[in-house]
Amino acid sequence: MIKIGVIGYGYWGPNLVRNFAETRDAKVVSVADLDPRKLEIVQRRYPAVQVTTRFQDLLEDTGIDAIAVATPVNSHFELGMAVLRAGKHLWLEKPMAETSLQARKLVEEAEKRKLVLLVDHTFIYTGAIRRMAEIIQRGDLGRVYYYDSLRVNLGLFQRDVNVISDLAVHDFSILDYLLGEHPVAVSASGTNHFPGTPENLAFITLFYESGTIAHANVSWLAPVKVRQILVGGSKKMITYNDLEPSEKVKIYDKGVSFTDDPKQIREMRIGYRTGDMWAPRLPTTEALSLEAEHFVDCVQHQKAPETDGHLGLRVVELIEAATSSMRGRGETLYLQQREKAA
Amino acid sequence: MIKIGVIGYGYWGPNLVRNFAETRDAKVVSVADLDPRKLEIVQRRYPAVQVTTRFQDLLEDTGIDAIAVATPVNSHFELGMAVLRAGKHLWLEKPMAETSLQARKLVEEAEKRKLVLLVDHTFIYTGAIRRMAEIIQRGDLGRVYYYDSLRVNLGLFQRDVNVISDLAVHDFSILDYLLGEHPVAVSASGTNHFPGTPENLAFITLFYESGTIAHANVSWLAPVKVRQILVGGSKKMITYNDLEPSEKVKIYDKGVSFTDDPKQIREMRIGYRTGDMWAPRLPTTEALSLEAEHFVDCVQHQKAPETDGHLGLRVVELIEAATSSMRGRGETLYLQQREKAA
Amino acid sequence: MIKIGVIGYGYWGPNLVRNFAETRDAKVVSVADLDPRKLEIVQRRYPAVQVTTRFQDLLEDTGIDAIAVATPVNSHFELGMAVLRAGKHLWLEKPMAETSLQARKLVEEAEKRKLVLLVDHTFIYTGAIRRMAEIIQRGDLGRVYYYDSLRVNLGLFQRDVNVISDLAVHDFSILDYLLGEHPVAVSASGTNHFPGTPENLAFITLFYESGTIAHANVSWLAPVKVRQILVGGSKKMITYNDLEPSEKVKIYDKGVSFTDDPKQIREMRIGYRTGDMWAPRLPTTEALSLEAEHFVDCVQHQKAPETDGHLGLRVVELIEAATSSMRGRGETLYLQQREKAA
Amino acid sequence: MIKIGVIGYGYWGPNLVRNFAETRDAKVVSVADLDPRKLEIVQRRYPAVQVTTRFQDLLEDTGIDAIAVATPVNSHFELGMAVLRAGKHLWLEKPMAETSLQARKLVEEAEKRKLVLLVDHTFIYTGAIRRMAEIIQRGDLGRVYYYDSLRVNLGLFQRDVNVISDLAVHDFSILDYLLGEHPVAVSASGTNHFPGTPENLAFITLFYESGTIAHANVSWLAPVKVRQILVGGSKKMITYNDLEPSEKVKIYDKGVSFTDDPKQIREMRIGYRTGDMWAPRLPTTEALSLEAEHFVDCVQHQKAPETDGHLGLRVVELIEAATSSMRGRGETLYLQQREKAA
Repeated sequence: MIKIGVIGYGYWGPNLVRNFAETRDAKVVSVADLDPRKLEIVQRRYPAVQVTTRFQDLLEDTGIDAIAVATPVNSHFELGMAVLRAGKHLWLEKPMAETSLQARKLVEEAEKRKLVLLVDHTFIYTGAIRRMAEIIQRGDLGRVYYYDSLRVNLGLFQRDVNVISDLAVHDFSILDYLLGEHPVAVSASGTNHFPGTPENLAFITLFYESGTIAHANVSWLAPVKVRQILVGGSKKMITYNDLEPSEKVKIYDKGVSFTDDPKQIREMRIGYRTGDMWAPRLPTTEALSLEAEHFVDCVQHQKAPETDGHLGLRVVELIEAATSSMRGRGETLYLQQREKAA
Repeated sequence: MIKIGVIGYGYWGPNLVRNFAETRDAKVVSVADLDPRKLEIVQRRYPAVQVTTRFQDLLEDTGIDAIAVATPVNSHFELGMAVLRAGKHLWLEKPMAETSLQARKLVEEAEKRKLVLLVDHTFIYTGAIRRMAEIIQRGDLGRVYYYDSLRVNLGLFQRDVNVISDLAVHDFSILDYLLGEHPVAVSASGTNHFPGTPENLAFITLFYESGTIAHANVSWLAPVKVRQILVGGSKKMITYNDLEPSEKVKIYDKGVSFTDDPKQIREMRIGYRTGDMWAPRLPTTEALSLEAEHFVDCVQHQKAPETDGHLGLRVVELIEAATSSMRGRGETLYLQQREKAA
Repeated sequence: MIKIGVIGYGYWGPNLVRNFAETRDAKVVSVADLDPRKLEIVQRRYPAVQVTTRFQDLLEDTGIDAIAVATPVNSHFELGMAVLRAGKHLWLEKPMAETSLQARKLVEEAEKRKLVLLVDHTFIYTGAIRRMAEIIQRGDLGRVYYYDSLRVNLGLFQRDVNVISDLAVHDFSILDYLLGEHPVAVSASGTNHFPGTPENLAFITLFYESGTIAHANVSWLAPVKVRQILVGGSKKMITYNDLEPSEKVKIYDKGVSFTDDPKQIREMRIGYRTGDMWAPRLPTTEALSLEAEHFVDCVQHQKAPETDGHLGLRVVELIEAATSSMRGRGETLYLQQREKAA
Repeated sequence: MIKIGVIGYGYWGPNLVRNFAETRDAKVVSVADLDPRKLEIVQRRYPAVQVTTRFQDLLEDTGIDAIAVATPVNSHFELGMAVLRAGKHLWLEKPMAETSLQARKLVEEAEKRKLVLLVDHTFIYTGAIRRMAEIIQRGDLGRVYYYDSLRVNLGLFQRDVNVISDLAVHDFSILDYLLGEHPVAVSASGTNHFPGTPENLAFITLFYESGTIAHANVSWLAPVKVRQILVGGSKKMITYNDLEPSEKVKIYDKGVSFTDDPKQIREMRIGYRTGDMWAPRLPTTEALSLEAEHFVDCVQHQKAPETDGHLGLRVVELIEAATSSMRGRGETLYLQQREKAA
């Protein structure tokens, strides 16, 4: 039985507590939050769980094996390091830190102490993304030409992180999982429409060694909510609409065939192919429930999570690079160089 | 009665002939195409129209007042200049030329000779775009924050122009018409997935002095066809879905209000507002029919068309700048500087 | 403070407990269910609420003012009567009884004892239906020509009630609320595809004195879920799509105008009118929360609920008549005659 | 080369002329219409085709092999009989006649004279319906439980035929083709909202010996256009949305499994199954072009068309029965009895 503490009971914390409470082999023993009113809610819902306004109580509690940190991003580094230094396994919300330097230190600390570090990139545990990864990794799409994401809606303006950190973070983790390849360069543009606030709209392009190109359009200022990804390959193409209730993922037997046949050289050398469309049934298990089980399993068997600190670090590097490029109005940043410089 | 000749009876030429044939005060007298089989089709459909494989016949025909050029882009400059030098009014397909230098020469030639030059940016004559322009120019949207266009589908690969010239050209003309402002900078990225062919996918960001930001995502390699524009303002927001049969344009009474109230400074300073949605009825007249009438009217009364050579030139400048930026992986180009340099 | 007991903690009971728990001036004091495992769940979630497997405990508890009955339909009459006879106000799930005779007795008992009887036709408390009623009753639609509902999905087969009682029940209550008119005749057809089970698919037509015609297509055997209502009037028409996240209700300025002008008599005498579409913003309050407050208000101030026993009875009469007609393969039943006979 | 005459150049006639003109082995030689202005249009478009206001000219023209009749329904019988008696093959618009008696006489006349009689139920020649028929007849759906059609829009009020004859006619022919079974009973309801005009809205239920039930909801008075069919079977289910541009037909691997297992008898005996969805690519050939070729082939090789007079007659019988039932407010009519009585 893994005993879990949770720091932060704001927007996401309640989901963590609920899911860990329902995970076999796990038990939530303590919740910390600065706001006593939130702790009252915990007490009413979970009378057996201890509550405290001092997160240090959880660090000092020798009965706790692992701690989940669900606080604002600017406290992730400090709290995460404290958890690891207290010798406890760490579940950290995304993005894992404000800078790649911080993220790298967290990764190193966890490895040094042989503690599990899971970064909560929940999308990786959804049926939709896992099925897409299967299809892509099995080669069904052929060569992956592009990934194109539209992720916009009205509102949820953040005060201390920009829209890249809030929304494009999902695309960065999904891309890492789907492609298994890190981009070589990034070019982003975007703006903030309200002085003194973070950027609320951004367009990011990622370039890959293999020729794949990825794009994410993220905004807090759209009249309608859209969550849509297209992935185009040489053999098949995928659409993923997260707001579609029943057929989120569709695989199109559509593509372009390019011929080098010299006879056709003076004619159009591109042929089109359109075939059936197929929407696989997806499991309906809540992603967070699967992720909580996975974390407990990693802690019990000393395994690296699917969304470990290395993935979390790569995502932070992309947020950092995309934000820099955006502030340079699209200036291309080469990631390999940054890697060496670091 | 304005007598019209048409050069080029390929993809778009038949639409021009059909619409001019049905325009009051206009008459199609002659059609030129290099392919005699296409001329046979003209003869069968319009027994009274003359046909020829020599476009020079139209230039020399003193009975012709105006000539429409609907040929591949690489012949626009040569044919357009020849038409103007023959003293005839010119209707030119979009984009008006391969380079801004050529476009500028066409504009100067038309002005010198006091001839009408209309560039066929058909979207400007649709009920949807005209209604959107009315709404924006009346101030209903408040300050325009952004324009965001998704214009993708499978196929229609071009051999000699890239996807910016083929698809983003529409956004460039629509933006010019809606905003009445020329961007100061452009950053684009994109790629060609088939060696030796033009870029088939591009992401373009335009920056405006006023703070408006515009983005176009264009591709010939998407599994589904999308033609969608979002325009966000401080008071209202618009969606325009060109594939929606009945409610193409929707106006959302939605927005964000930003407060500088010092009492709220420590709290979130952004408020959300959501209200009704409204979809105006749009006229169903074919845009090209309206545009043909407008051209005839301009010729008869010596007026400048709504899509004149200046607009056409500004669009070519944007295609040129976006293509350069894309080939530099997003390198920002400042248009004012280009203007001076030119 | 109104003290409330809840009998039945199956599918709907938890929603009642949750909403009454959050209603000002109300307090859930006791929950009864035959299944002790369900009572354990209640205890964990609401430690202060008493639980029992004997519903009689609630009847005998003099501290309880009102009881909500959320059990299978076949126990509604017996339990409802027991609640009223114990002198407590009654919240009864829909349909209120298995037969109109039972429903009438419940209405009479409540009136005799001056107790509040609310039948839980939740739709009547949704923002969408209330807004539609406002629009219709204000005369904006003109004369109401028809109501047409499609309410289908896969599954949720019931063992003891048919699909009319399970799904068309919603249309019957909505129609009663929107039109304020009771139908004069009903014709229904339908079938059960599995021997020994209730009908799983039905088509019901209701005829009104005023000329309005209503139709409901209900099924447990459709591959997709649809919840859609059209209401057509002489001036405007409404669509209501309950699965649409943001624009559930749309009002179309569309219609038909019929002329008796003798000059047009030999021509088509029907003209079409199409104008703007408008989607009003709807409140996002949970309907059940509004309904719980309304019930408490009725109990406190001795008022008749909007969905009182009379409405509940009229709905049961329609279920009864439609089921009879369906079993006679569409045989028309005249409701006025039934009324008199009863 | 089959020589074809066309009587009637109103709404549908131009489509017939265009398609026959492009059919190999066919030639349109003459067009008759009472309105000389329509004949002018024919002459402009097809200078080689003869035109006349006297349909008798076509009957007397020994150079004509077959005649297509595309006139109002009330003239179908008279003109169709005249064509057959002139010894010419007959293409007749749907519905083939006003009464089943007339339809039967046309069938008998064609058979007696060994002439081809095709009734133009165009839907039967669409890729969508043909693919659905294949799937159903191959047994992929299992037992067919139901067919459910929604076919509504604003306008196109007819003066002399009701909405059953105008719209449900499509469902009747599609059902005949898909199921290969004639209903045993029909129950319909509907109304006209404008005195002195035909019924503009109707709901029709058809009952089949096999247990299949079919329903069509047809209306000229809906604010939105809908063309949607659901077909549910024991193994799979189909949706067909004719307005969807790319994925009209979807096959759902969804269903209900019914168990007679006595152990489960006290529990719910219905299980649900949901699996993948699949949208087959459909051919994009115009249905009318395929149908025109088929007619020419039938004439050349003395074959019975897929939509022959017998199918046309069965459809007219259903229109007749449904209209009678509707006028009796849903009174069930048994078709076998009608058959014998006739």
